[in-house]
Amino acid sequence: MTMFVALAVLLGAAKLAGEIMQKLDQPSVLGEIMAGILLGPTVLGHFKPGLYAFIFPATGNLPIVLETVTTLGVVFFLLTAGLEIDLRSIYRQGRSALLVSFLGVIIPFALGFSAAEWSPQFLGAETGANTRIFALFVGTALSISALPVIAKILMDLNLLRSEMGTVVMSSAMFDDLVGWILFSMILGMMHGGDSSFSQVKRTIVLVIGFVVLSLTVVRWLIDKILPRIQAHTSWPGGVLGFIFTLTLASAAFAEFAGIHAVFGAFIVGIAVGESTHLRKRTSELIHGIVTNVFAPFFFASIGLRTNFVANFSLPITVTVIVVACVGKLVGAGLGARLGGMDRRTSWGVGLAMNARGAMEMILGLIALQAGLIQEKMFVALVVMALFTSLISAPAMHFLIRSRREITLKETITTKLFLPELKAHTKLEALEQMCAAAANTVNNAPERFLRLILEREAIVPSGWENGLAVPHARVNGLPHPIVVVARVNNGIDFDARDGRVARLIVMILTGDNQSQHDLLRNAGELFSRKEAIEQTLNAQSFVELVAALNAPVS
Amino acid sequence: MTMFVALAVLLGAAKLAGEIMQKLDQPSVLGEIMAGILLGPTVLGHFKPGLYAFIFPATGNLPIVLETVTTLGVVFFLLTAGLEIDLRSIYRQGRSALLVSFLGVIIPFALGFSAAEWSPQFLGAETGANTRIFALFVGTALSISALPVIAKILMDLNLLRSEMGTVVMSSAMFDDLVGWILFSMILGMMHGGDSSFSQVKRTIVLVIGFVVLSLTVVRWLIDKILPRIQAHTSWPGGVLGFIFTLTLASAAFAEFAGIHAVFGAFIVGIAVGESTHLRKRTSELIHGIVTNVFAPFFFASIGLRTNFVANFSLPITVTVIVVACVGKLVGAGLGARLGGMDRRTSWGVGLAMNARGAMEMILGLIALQAGLIQEKMFVALVVMALFTSLISAPAMHFLIRSRREITLKETITTKLFLPELKAHTKLEALEQMCAAAANTVNNAPERFLRLILEREAIVPSGWENGLAVPHARVNGLPHPIVVVARVNNGIDFDARDGRVARLIVMILTGDNQSQHDLLRNAGELFSRKEAIEQTLNAQSFVELVAALNAPVS
Repeated sequence: MTMFVALAVLLGAAKLAGEIMQKLDQPSVLGEIMAGILLGPTVLGHFKPGLYAFIFPATGNLPIVLETVTTLGVVFFLLTAGLEIDLRSIYRQGRSALLVSFLGVIIPFALGFSAAEWSPQFLGAETGANTRIFALFVGTALSISALPVIAKILMDLNLLRSEMGTVVMSSAMFDDLVGWILFSMILGMMHGGDSSFSQVKRTIVLVIGFVVLSLTVVRWLIDKILPRIQAHTSWPGGVLGFIFTLTLASAAFAEFAGIHAVFGAFIVGIAVGESTHLRKRTSELIHGIVTNVFAPFFFASIGLRTNFVANFSLPITVTVIVVACVGKLVGAGLGARLGGMDRRTSWGVGLAMNARGAMEMILGLIALQAGLIQEKMFVALVVMALFTSLISAPAMHFLIRSRREITLKETITTKLFLPELKAHTKLEALEQMCAAAANTVNNAPERFLRLILEREAIVPSGWENGLAVPHARVNGLPHPIVVVARVNNGIDFDARDGRVARLIVMILTGDNQSQHDLLRNAGELFSRKEAIEQTLNAQSFVELVAALNAPVS
Repeated sequence: MTMFVALAVLLGAAKLAGEIMQKLDQPSVLGEIMAGILLGPTVLGHFKPGLYAFIFPATGNLPIVLETVTTLGVVFFLLTAGLEIDLRSIYRQGRSALLVSFLGVIIPFALGFSAAEWSPQFLGAETGANTRIFALFVGTALSISALPVIAKILMDLNLLRSEMGTVVMSSAMFDDLVGWILFSMILGMMHGGDSSFSQVKRTIVLVIGFVVLSLTVVRWLIDKILPRIQAHTSWPGGVLGFIFTLTLASAAFAEFAGIHAVFGAFIVGIAVGESTHLRKRTSELIHGIVTNVFAPFFFASIGLRTNFVANFSLPITVTVIVVACVGKLVGAGLGARLGGMDRRTSWGVGLAMNARGAMEMILGLIALQAGLIQEKMFVALVVMALFTSLISAPAMHFLIRSRREITLKETITTKLFLPELKAHTKLEALEQMCAAAANTVNNAPERFLRLILEREAIVPSGWENGLAVPHARVNGLPHPIVVVARVNNGIDFDARDGRVARLIVMILTGDNQSQHDLLRNAGELFSRKEAIEQTLNAQSFVELVAALNAPVS
């Protein structure tokens, strides 16, 4: 029973906090970690120790149960991280990406390594740990980026497909790959006890061998096997079974080789993701399973590990943040500038690459468990990761001033939802809808109607499957207006499939960009018949929002 | 590391065996359980004890790790089982369904109860277990059905939407619900020690209260909350998080109430599934996650529990099988006959309801763990479940003689895949394709061409997005022929969207039914543009099969 209580509380709190962060346009991982901190020894354990001990008893099987679930969570999370890496895109990006990745790794690594070499005790090296290895770890930890968080920020700012976006993504992929290879070597050296030269050599050979083999022979084999699996097994069971089994097997092998299980999963993810035969829907499905069910357990559990107040050390945290930010901003920014980007874009690249998030914390946790760093340093790393992830989006927004795409969902209002429009002709319907729209902005309905009809005369607004989307640009309109109306009888809007419209979505905007966004959103959304039906069946405004909040792909 | 080895082996073997069973038109659960028996003490542990101990060491944390993963597996499996239950459809089916469900529970229950009362020791009651409770358990175990397996069999035989299919499905849902309620009561009585009257009363009140509350107040609440979640959270993360958290919480509550966790998950599944706001894609996603990732661990682990050879008792197994089959066949068959069905259909209903599968084994496992039955009885129950599931499909096939739908995937052949057809006009292309087709059956190509062109004259065969599907019925054709051709330049087939065809799929059949099946399959498959592109890009015959093996929804 305790198992179900603990898991329900963890998952529920993590998802809730994650959704709240998403509403605030922040990556959901941050909410999941904060939920863990709230439920862990820091807050709940401090203020309500009795309740905390009831939910997460330290005795019995629960610690092992949690360890199992969170380990699977992080292993599968690294699988999806690997799936997102596209080696070819790194080659393609050329000089800028190369410079950004290279300097974005070298400079933070050098700064972190020097700082740790200079004063390992101050930075919270575990007593007895090899200081050279500790310094290597700090350097690596500060040079790694966090692909998922960066992708989310770029996507929200509508920059993912821009030149800057592709350079940042390729460089972050490269940094992740290099960072994890370095980190695996460090772990291998640690397990070897003292870092004698032969031991170091063995680890390097092992890690490089593992990576090279996985990305050549294994990758080629996967590319040959995938189409056969997709041809001869049921979808998606066969291919999911194959990928998850491969991930578990590779994790086992990585552990056997003395590097960490997550590295095995990460490399498998890259190898599978490189296959051109992997269906987009398969990777979306894996992504959906992992980020929604497995990963939240892991991220919430980070907060359970330690007391983030008792183990908080201001000097260490400030030092880590300063070194991390200076290193990445200067390194990646300089790389972008040398690669020929202008000053503002270069700063943007630096800021984007500076977001850490998940990867940093996974590294920190493994180092903590391996006895390499003290809890103080672990807390500093987590805080640094949270801090850099949180400031990246607002800072880039301020710097680049790009805009988010507008969607129907956020534009509709209760007043402009007309669930039962009484109209028999197109003109009657448009008149009533324009009247409702004009009413909200104190404007003349005749003007709206004239503009709508002008547009209608050029291209009829009837789409397929009983939908009509009349629209117009209205100069001086302060914000976009969307009117959603339903007509029981159906009205002819001259649709290509000849069917009458039962759902009318009128879009009025003051500028071209918003109109483009809203029409595109409508096009994507209503390309699925299901979305039209759900909108037609919505009983209330909440259900209308739910129908428009559907996935667009 | 052992954790990853054990999980990789379990998942890999379970999925592989499951896929093989699916190829043989059997439910994949059967394969998953057999994989467990092969890997468990029965085969691997017996013949290669060293390897077995390496993969599944009995010491250390591994047993708890496996227990965690398999418990989550079965809890989430019961969630999906509950999601599939549609209470309204049970009411709707009326008299036949009522009679089938009622007699289909009562008669096997009475037979099982009597047999166990008559000689509990012979049937493998655990020494010291209350024989009355044991008899109740045996009765319940023999009266429960297995919805997923039955649905799969009916679907394969193309009977799911027939009158017989809907009656069987409704009755199986009812039996599942009643069976689980009974079983929860039995478990509750057991935990109460001796079955004094007040204890029995307490358990009954608790279980009934839990069910009634969940299916009224909680169900109403879920129906109110779901649209809000779908409106205000990201899809599918928000709704998945909600459902999984609710499942874990309800499992915790069920354990707290003294009934088993799986029952809580099952009831939550029913309550969520009843909401009209649950999107079809959400339940498909949950189904995909659970049946492909969580459930295989559980089913494979059944085989790990015990040695199926050492604990096999022929007398017990035969008795259980005979009592189970007679009870269900007579009970459900009689119900169908009294409900007004003809003799053959009534036998079909009995045979379908007789398939047990997963549910039986879950019940058996819980009873084993609770110390109610001996391993001999557990083995007998598992064997009975496997046996009844395995014979149902062939027996019904023999009885009803219905046919499976034909798909493009299984009809295409390497010889009739023309990846680069050299043709400039419709006639040229059709001529060459007819020649290829006629060649395989020693028929005259002119005849095929004439029939195709006659059909073409009535309705042009150009579909949308660059696809053409010329087809004809050819009297006396021994089996359907499908020719897949690609033309680089594109040929006009008079498509509605005006685009030229680059992919031509020619369908020739001897009967109307196969033609209907193949055209429908093509229509569903190629309604997704992605499928057309994958077919156009297929580099080999295997990749062509993979493209045609895509999901149709």
